[in-house]
Amino acid sequence: MKSEEFILNTPSLSAYKWWPGGLGQTANVAIVMAQLYIKGKHYGLHPFLVRIRNAQTHLPEPGVDVGEIGPKLGLNGVNNGFLGLKDVRIPRKQMLMKNAEVRPNGRFVKGPEPLLTYGTMVFARVMIVRDVSFGLLQAATIATRYSAVRRQSPIAVDQPEPQILDHTTQQAKLFPQIAKGIFFRIAADVVWLIYQSVAKELGAGQRRNLPELHALSCCLKAYCSAEAEEAVEILRKSCGGHGYLRSSNFPEIYGAVTAACTYEGENTVLLLQTARFLVKQYVDGLKRKVLPSSVTYLRNATPPKWGKSVELKTLVRLLEYAATESVRSAFEYQKKQRKIFKSEPMVTNKAGIRLIQSATLHARAFLARNASEEAEKLRRQLKPALAEVLVQLTEIFVLDLCLAMEQLKTRFERLLEEFRVNAVTVVDGFDFSDRVLGSTLGCYDGHVYERLLAEACQSPLNEEPVNQTFQTHLKPLMQGKL
Amino acid sequence: MKSEEFILNTPSLSAYKWWPGGLGQTANVAIVMAQLYIKGKHYGLHPFLVRIRNAQTHLPEPGVDVGEIGPKLGLNGVNNGFLGLKDVRIPRKQMLMKNAEVRPNGRFVKGPEPLLTYGTMVFARVMIVRDVSFGLLQAATIATRYSAVRRQSPIAVDQPEPQILDHTTQQAKLFPQIAKGIFFRIAADVVWLIYQSVAKELGAGQRRNLPELHALSCCLKAYCSAEAEEAVEILRKSCGGHGYLRSSNFPEIYGAVTAACTYEGENTVLLLQTARFLVKQYVDGLKRKVLPSSVTYLRNATPPKWGKSVELKTLVRLLEYAATESVRSAFEYQKKQRKIFKSEPMVTNKAGIRLIQSATLHARAFLARNASEEAEKLRRQLKPALAEVLVQLTEIFVLDLCLAMEQLKTRFERLLEEFRVNAVTVVDGFDFSDRVLGSTLGCYDGHVYERLLAEACQSPLNEEPVNQTFQTHLKPLMQGKL
Repeated sequence: MKSEEFILNTPSLSAYKWWPGGLGQTANVAIVMAQLYIKGKHYGLHPFLVRIRNAQTHLPEPGVDVGEIGPKLGLNGVNNGFLGLKDVRIPRKQMLMKNAEVRPNGRFVKGPEPLLTYGTMVFARVMIVRDVSFGLLQAATIATRYSAVRRQSPIAVDQPEPQILDHTTQQAKLFPQIAKGIFFRIAADVVWLIYQSVAKELGAGQRRNLPELHALSCCLKAYCSAEAEEAVEILRKSCGGHGYLRSSNFPEIYGAVTAACTYEGENTVLLLQTARFLVKQYVDGLKRKVLPSSVTYLRNATPPKWGKSVELKTLVRLLEYAATESVRSAFEYQKKQRKIFKSEPMVTNKAGIRLIQSATLHARAFLARNASEEAEKLRRQLKPALAEVLVQLTEIFVLDLCLAMEQLKTRFERLLEEFRVNAVTVVDGFDFSDRVLGSTLGCYDGHVYERLLAEACQSPLNEEPVNQTFQTHLKPLMQGKL
Repeated sequence: MKSEEFILNTPSLSAYKWWPGGLGQTANVAIVMAQLYIKGKHYGLHPFLVRIRNAQTHLPEPGVDVGEIGPKLGLNGVNNGFLGLKDVRIPRKQMLMKNAEVRPNGRFVKGPEPLLTYGTMVFARVMIVRDVSFGLLQAATIATRYSAVRRQSPIAVDQPEPQILDHTTQQAKLFPQIAKGIFFRIAADVVWLIYQSVAKELGAGQRRNLPELHALSCCLKAYCSAEAEEAVEILRKSCGGHGYLRSSNFPEIYGAVTAACTYEGENTVLLLQTARFLVKQYVDGLKRKVLPSSVTYLRNATPPKWGKSVELKTLVRLLEYAATESVRSAFEYQKKQRKIFKSEPMVTNKAGIRLIQSATLHARAFLARNASEEAEKLRRQLKPALAEVLVQLTEIFVLDLCLAMEQLKTRFERLLEEFRVNAVTVVDGFDFSDRVLGSTLGCYDGHVYERLLAEACQSPLNEEPVNQTFQTHLKPLMQGKL
């Protein structure tokens, strides 16, 4: 303390930090979140600026154990690192003291409650919804184009084999993913606007709308990343064996999209956060309080009437009703558990499955309402022919969310048939360049087989006409000399 | 013809053969399935023995374009190849003539209908169900062990952070996958016995039971591979970021399991084959014909009565009823489509979504019945304490298949809680050695963090304390010289 220094330690291997991007060989300073102890007393988690590599030599500083974490499922271009610290001393001033302060005499002074840290996480999560929608749309572009080139399994008698895009089962794999990519992107844009307005309010010290935004960004990040991950794999497999080739670029896209299920808040944890908000709002609703706009439906959801022709807004209300019922079930179950367990975290734990279902259904309801409302706005700005395509996509998106229902099947099948003619044009309209898609299967010109062979020929195994392993292994084996 | 030779050609790039394992640099002969033309007349697909590499030099024979297809999502140890042929001549005798013959004078003679080729495909598909169940159980072992080591998020007040295995949401991710792995394996064993008996019948020229076995093996291969693939990813993500490391071995297991969704008959195609059988049996059932045992339920499925306590066999009957309703829906829809379309393949195409659902639900019903019957048999041979664990696993498996139903949720939650204490012991009981698991997260001794760091340190990037890119890129950048 006399030297006005902090001493940083990671006392066990499980205290090592893992994963920050650029930490492995690149960064030379790090902001370290550490438990603060002063004279043996614990003051919680605080941020410290720590030099981890020498500014001149780039060698790790004494006491710093830093390196790269090794190969991963994807994103191998990111220099993810691990960091261990042993008796690393830093000047007192290198504690980031905006929200809490340690005085030269060792006195700890707490500042006002931090508002904006929350906001930063929201920002990252909205960005993730955008990112995964791009990955999804790229995969959809590749699969749709390939399905227009690849021909298999006769449908009509005496006709050549059809484009596989003409198979209903193939359409059912592709078209809902196109719609998802589009409406996830639109949802991200809408939440982005909400974020900007809430950030402005936060700047003025007003945090009233933060919980709603936080809850919304949590469940959308979780739901959209999980759906996009699944969608990319459906699309990859829709290309058969060739989708399994790295040169299709599906494995790379998958690696990036599935990572989003885990980083910036693991999906299950995020859904539980949204669920806590939903249950609280549901209780407020029972007390007839006014609820934030994205959850107003929790107050007065009723099973919608089911006529002969079902309008889109009826389906939206159906999804909202399902979400409300799920929140109610979680709430009731928690009440029961509270009679058995004293600890509130234990009550949450026991209700975990139901809470996660609530948050998931809330995300679906929000996405459906948002899709139908935004499409309605966009439609008015479009030429009729284009507006029709947008309506098709909106219906495919919302019906896909409700598809457990037998009654909607015929309509869904009809939609697939109608959208067939627009599919290739729509994905072309996403305007991903061949370089961005990086796929042998998905180029604009449709020259799939030339690219596949050209790419295969670049495999190192094909460099020599006879691989050296013939001499070292195969020949001795064939001659019985192994 | 005078020279008694066949001439083989792949007239376009899309006629190239892709994917056979060992074809790239290893095989020197291949059995080529080729369209046979004699004097310009087409005689269909037949097998020919073709030397593709020289026996002495291993160089590709003249006219043979052979090589490796490049990096893949997984299974990179398999030397998958491509093959193109240009005017490759082979002696007439190298047509494999068991089932059809070309005489020296060019006359084509058809043999008896081949029975056993069908049988070989069935064999491969039963093996796949076994294989994916092993992959799934390995992933379940890794995730369960890691969940007993990793601690996070307090549940009880004033207790240290619990093993994540104590979180209900984590249990809901893990335990159904353990049960699936076990009962997929048991189903594979049962179908294997059926296969052996049918193969014997085929040897005696009797093919009566082949269609049922074929249909069963198709839908089980498709259903189990798709479920195992999904399960492996659920398990990987249940380990958070560390599951994303290659050293967890999840990516490798996933690569092998997901490949099974595509090879030996793409899943959608296989489900359509099963569905065709199911619709045919359903029609036979309407005519009160006797149906094969695995589809007897199609004749008399009724919605089971739903009492206060639901027995397992009631759930099995419920799944059978759902499958029957789905087959009925597909059948009715096909009838309607037949009024619009003349071509039967078009009728099948239009009904594709419903047909696939039928086959999927049939697989679920079969697996549920099989699990409950086989567990009943096994139970009698076990000590009571062990029998209880088997009952838990059977219930988890069957309930998971029915879990859309609100009424079963509480029971499922109770089961997870009860099975918690057995989880680690059960996966230890699978007896996968650490070498087979090949995972930093899943070793028997639980030393996760030591292994993670040891593995990370082996990354080539960590060889030098300062990576060379510091001199070439980072330093010039920091000095503003880039």
